[in-house]
Amino acid sequence: MTYSVAVSGASGYAGGEILRLLAAHPDIEIRTVTAHSNAGQPLVRHQPHLRSLSHLTLQDTTPEVLAGHDIVVLALPHGQSGQYTDALADTPIVIDAGADHRLTDASAWAQFYGGDFHAPWTYGVPELVVDGAKQRELLAGATRIAAPGCNASTVALSLAPGVAAGVIDPSDIVTVLAVGPSGAGKSLKTNLLASEILGSANPYAVGGSHRHIPEIRQALVGAGAVGDVRISFTPVLVPMARGILATSTAPIAPGVSDAQIREAWADAYAGEAFVQLLDEGEFPRTADVLGANTALLGLAIDRAANRVVVVAAVDNLVKGTAGAAVQSLNIALGLPEDRALTVNGVAP
Amino acid sequence: MTYSVAVSGASGYAGGEILRLLAAHPDIEIRTVTAHSNAGQPLVRHQPHLRSLSHLTLQDTTPEVLAGHDIVVLALPHGQSGQYTDALADTPIVIDAGADHRLTDASAWAQFYGGDFHAPWTYGVPELVVDGAKQRELLAGATRIAAPGCNASTVALSLAPGVAAGVIDPSDIVTVLAVGPSGAGKSLKTNLLASEILGSANPYAVGGSHRHIPEIRQALVGAGAVGDVRISFTPVLVPMARGILATSTAPIAPGVSDAQIREAWADAYAGEAFVQLLDEGEFPRTADVLGANTALLGLAIDRAANRVVVVAAVDNLVKGTAGAAVQSLNIALGLPEDRALTVNGVAP
Amino acid sequence: MTYSVAVSGASGYAGGEILRLLAAHPDIEIRTVTAHSNAGQPLVRHQPHLRSLSHLTLQDTTPEVLAGHDIVVLALPHGQSGQYTDALADTPIVIDAGADHRLTDASAWAQFYGGDFHAPWTYGVPELVVDGAKQRELLAGATRIAAPGCNASTVALSLAPGVAAGVIDPSDIVTVLAVGPSGAGKSLKTNLLASEILGSANPYAVGGSHRHIPEIRQALVGAGAVGDVRISFTPVLVPMARGILATSTAPIAPGVSDAQIREAWADAYAGEAFVQLLDEGEFPRTADVLGANTALLGLAIDRAANRVVVVAAVDNLVKGTAGAAVQSLNIALGLPEDRALTVNGVAP
Amino acid sequence: MTYSVAVSGASGYAGGEILRLLAAHPDIEIRTVTAHSNAGQPLVRHQPHLRSLSHLTLQDTTPEVLAGHDIVVLALPHGQSGQYTDALADTPIVIDAGADHRLTDASAWAQFYGGDFHAPWTYGVPELVVDGAKQRELLAGATRIAAPGCNASTVALSLAPGVAAGVIDPSDIVTVLAVGPSGAGKSLKTNLLASEILGSANPYAVGGSHRHIPEIRQALVGAGAVGDVRISFTPVLVPMARGILATSTAPIAPGVSDAQIREAWADAYAGEAFVQLLDEGEFPRTADVLGANTALLGLAIDRAANRVVVVAAVDNLVKGTAGAAVQSLNIALGLPEDRALTVNGVAP
Repeated sequence: MTYSVAVSGASGYAGGEILRLLAAHPDIEIRTVTAHSNAGQPLVRHQPHLRSLSHLTLQDTTPEVLAGHDIVVLALPHGQSGQYTDALADTPIVIDAGADHRLTDASAWAQFYGGDFHAPWTYGVPELVVDGAKQRELLAGATRIAAPGCNASTVALSLAPGVAAGVIDPSDIVTVLAVGPSGAGKSLKTNLLASEILGSANPYAVGGSHRHIPEIRQALVGAGAVGDVRISFTPVLVPMARGILATSTAPIAPGVSDAQIREAWADAYAGEAFVQLLDEGEFPRTADVLGANTALLGLAIDRAANRVVVVAAVDNLVKGTAGAAVQSLNIALGLPEDRALTVNGVAP
Repeated sequence: MTYSVAVSGASGYAGGEILRLLAAHPDIEIRTVTAHSNAGQPLVRHQPHLRSLSHLTLQDTTPEVLAGHDIVVLALPHGQSGQYTDALADTPIVIDAGADHRLTDASAWAQFYGGDFHAPWTYGVPELVVDGAKQRELLAGATRIAAPGCNASTVALSLAPGVAAGVIDPSDIVTVLAVGPSGAGKSLKTNLLASEILGSANPYAVGGSHRHIPEIRQALVGAGAVGDVRISFTPVLVPMARGILATSTAPIAPGVSDAQIREAWADAYAGEAFVQLLDEGEFPRTADVLGANTALLGLAIDRAANRVVVVAAVDNLVKGTAGAAVQSLNIALGLPEDRALTVNGVAP
Repeated sequence: MTYSVAVSGASGYAGGEILRLLAAHPDIEIRTVTAHSNAGQPLVRHQPHLRSLSHLTLQDTTPEVLAGHDIVVLALPHGQSGQYTDALADTPIVIDAGADHRLTDASAWAQFYGGDFHAPWTYGVPELVVDGAKQRELLAGATRIAAPGCNASTVALSLAPGVAAGVIDPSDIVTVLAVGPSGAGKSLKTNLLASEILGSANPYAVGGSHRHIPEIRQALVGAGAVGDVRISFTPVLVPMARGILATSTAPIAPGVSDAQIREAWADAYAGEAFVQLLDEGEFPRTADVLGANTALLGLAIDRAANRVVVVAAVDNLVKGTAGAAVQSLNIALGLPEDRALTVNGVAP
Repeated sequence: MTYSVAVSGASGYAGGEILRLLAAHPDIEIRTVTAHSNAGQPLVRHQPHLRSLSHLTLQDTTPEVLAGHDIVVLALPHGQSGQYTDALADTPIVIDAGADHRLTDASAWAQFYGGDFHAPWTYGVPELVVDGAKQRELLAGATRIAAPGCNASTVALSLAPGVAAGVIDPSDIVTVLAVGPSGAGKSLKTNLLASEILGSANPYAVGGSHRHIPEIRQALVGAGAVGDVRISFTPVLVPMARGILATSTAPIAPGVSDAQIREAWADAYAGEAFVQLLDEGEFPRTADVLGANTALLGLAIDRAANRVVVVAAVDNLVKGTAGAAVQSLNIALGLPEDRALTVNGVAP
């Protein structure tokens, strides 16, 4: 059967990527695309790379327009999805690509986002280790799915195996990320201008204010972290349109061997197509996953510094957002998990 | 008076930057430029941006050619400067832009570089806190100067004030750097090709193998670190020709206040033109220091993570290498320290 | 049925892209990958983005290794394919991604390439206007296919409709191209280093020496050009890994109307999925076709300058090379022309 | 003596570059900086690279604030400088970095800009060939100076010598430019976002609508063009913050020799520091002039295409705008022409 889909926020970067993936999905019909300020215009005016969708026109993002589809994807700024909840009550599957349904802790929401708190939906990172199982199991048959934060899922996938296996200490995590500006959306801000970012590395949200921090903490607690999970988290904008290269380190737990450490990750991701641990001594580049739904992890054990170092490469718009949504959707629908998703990146 | 200079390695990136700075130096005459494989060719064929030096021809790098100048700058691969020591015995000032005369510890040299160990020269980072004073004092009248490693000096300047003041714990430093490929030199390696680096973030030397680690440790011990200095150090190549954006974190020492932490850096760099602490809440971009001899530091205190975060922006070829050399030379010669050096970057 | 394929030059950029496309091709089994200097190593060491092919090992490029497949793709430096001709005599389909079998004119080969001249194979640009028909017709059932030069096919597709319709004068074409360095291959040359290309625009082969010039001339003569075809052709390397943005202009033929001009292109590409004329006033960006097999054309008529301006965006590795090869292969095999090829680019 | 300066538009890119250059000018005191929306804020908040000017606060751009200086620089959007004319009647020198006082032809103004036409000021391109002399002569003692359009002056300098010498035909010029986005200013437009420009080449103003076209025509008529001057002009945004790489071609005039062609440019720029013709076979890169006031020209004679090709590299913010302003100012004041300006670029 073919499922009808409506995608809101279709003129933005996340919405555009969802459309790019769904356009190649044999079980999906993209019936409706909506946007706020650009309603009435052809989709390709705002997404000129989506030539196969040149027949679509952006409509207003209203409950009425979104209702009546098998699947609705909300790619909206945080705080905006709640207004569509009632109208979409009968929609079989709703995916929120925004932040509104990710956090389980209302106080964390209040601290990092503010505004009304919404109950969490099923978190869209299938490979995440959760209580000795995988998040995939919870996604089977799910009807309300929260696509992850791109940085959050990258770091959670980087560290959850070590936390679950007890080979690293989650109380003193340090993560620094090189990220492309598309993660910040198509926002008209001076710091996102090409002239500001070309040839430069620009830190932001330094010192613990980034909104993905509670999402990482939540994931690592879910993976089995005992005691406090503390994260020093610093993102740095670098001159590439897409990509996250997250370097995450945590202290080595006392008494564990190198083999035990490596096994924790190898076991967690054995057989996973979209989260792969590279061979010892190899580390990934963001170009290797461009356009792909793959998270590549490289693992080093630095005994001199007493830290495990995990370097993860993810395409923020695919595995970080839209690919996670489609993969989760495939699971929810009982389709092959990799439908319309690619393992191989577009490089160079 | 005008000092005559010979610059070896003049066809490379470090050599080229030294020439760019010295070409604007009113007290310096660039008399000789040398290179290995390109001897006999016009300098501008290899440094086409140095139009004011289009009269110069590259000569062979031999002791005879280098001897007889007031100042010799060696911009050679590590391990090569020793062969010129005897021939330059009478040269008033020799600056090594390579690694051969930086380390005081022969075992660190053996572990990270290998080959013959050479006695250390005066380290060319004037603002570095050393035993309660500044390295500047040691540079006054120096005759043999070791220009620093670009990453090493960036991290050392980032953390030395906190170490010296005892407000951070140097035993668990984590540093991740976004760096431009010019720091790796004009080497014909696949991983330095434009196609490999454009649009990608590429980690290297992950897990504790980078050669600048012992240099940082040495600087922080010199700044007064008590006990072990341990550093998790991960550099990431990003698509900008120049620049280092170093994010360095260390645990907050027990019992210190935010004000004490901030004062440590503010006091250390008060009055310094080329190392500046930004106002609270502000963090530097590498574009802000492009072409300039300035290190800009932003400081955050993350109590939730119990870590101080210092973000430093440096032009690897200027303050990281050639500018450090020229600044040190100015001090050694008793000239104004900022001669031929600029504080303002070329941005955007 | 499934066709077995061997790809030579598999560690390079063109070879890698052919593998990326074929890895998603349901009718193809990639059985053999070969390389010269890297034989014996895992493919993913050289193509780390091709994770789905991590089971493949590079073999030597010898006639024996290449023989015995249904399809052989030669992605070799020019002048090298001839040595495999005899050994591949029984191979049903051979595709040369290099230049050896593109030119019909031995004197043009001698002038721009040199060395042995080889008879031309069927040219792999299906949408090209040829004598009032399309090159597609010649590709049906072809057994020896010459994939095009990326710049050449981009310019040929840009101008052939106007030449064929007689609405532009081919005797004074001017083309300037912004191109990414991947078109130059994975060659260890100083001018291809990231430090040389980041933040810079670098012209090369200025003044009429580029090897794609005779290939363009040949295509435009084939399209019906009367009299001399003369092209001023200037490529400029710009800091993007992939992509060609070709601006091609030619004088407006006397007496033709704007409508006649526009119709020439609209008619030529009506119904084509992979070569699309944008609406009036719209012009393409290379990002719009990244990873896609699409050539997007924007057309302007500048009466003040008396010139038609065609701006074309192509991914040099896809529609410019590997996608052209796969599209041609699909036609030759009688498969759907778009199998394993995408219309939509990966943007931003 | 020291001249006091006020710079309006000080929070923008052109204003910032003027400040960067003047900050190093020994005869200038930057007394006042103004902006529209950002008045009251520290200059360094908007120009964080100008650390030496961290004492300055942005003031409102009003006639009262600007009046009373020796020199006023207007770096405003076009159409805005006229309102300050009366208030600045007594200001010894006024430089307009905008377009308002460049064109001599009111109808060209009306066609390409619109709004009130203002009388032209002395055009700030000292090396431009004008009626057998140089524009420099007109700038000596000038009190009202129009800094050039960056693309316009680049193309004018590229072609004026050939036009003046009669060795090229100005009736069929074709120019295509690779340009960095800083030329478009710090404008919040979607097409200037980093995500849109990174990894992409984006044409704009295709087909003859760019505002610099009449400025080029005017300069070439001034250089001695006989008959129509017609220009096909296509700018392409490429992923570098700064820089113009202009490829300009024109038909070779009948009967002229290669030597005559080359001599035209060699003679025109003999002895010029800031406009240099490269040796035969050499062509410039924009990196070679980054931060420098230099225009580098490479010249090819393509007899097969019957065209002269001039490739010019310019830093749009320096020689294209701010450097042109400072150079012109130096001439107007009788100072050494190169004061505060550098010939050497910042590369790599």
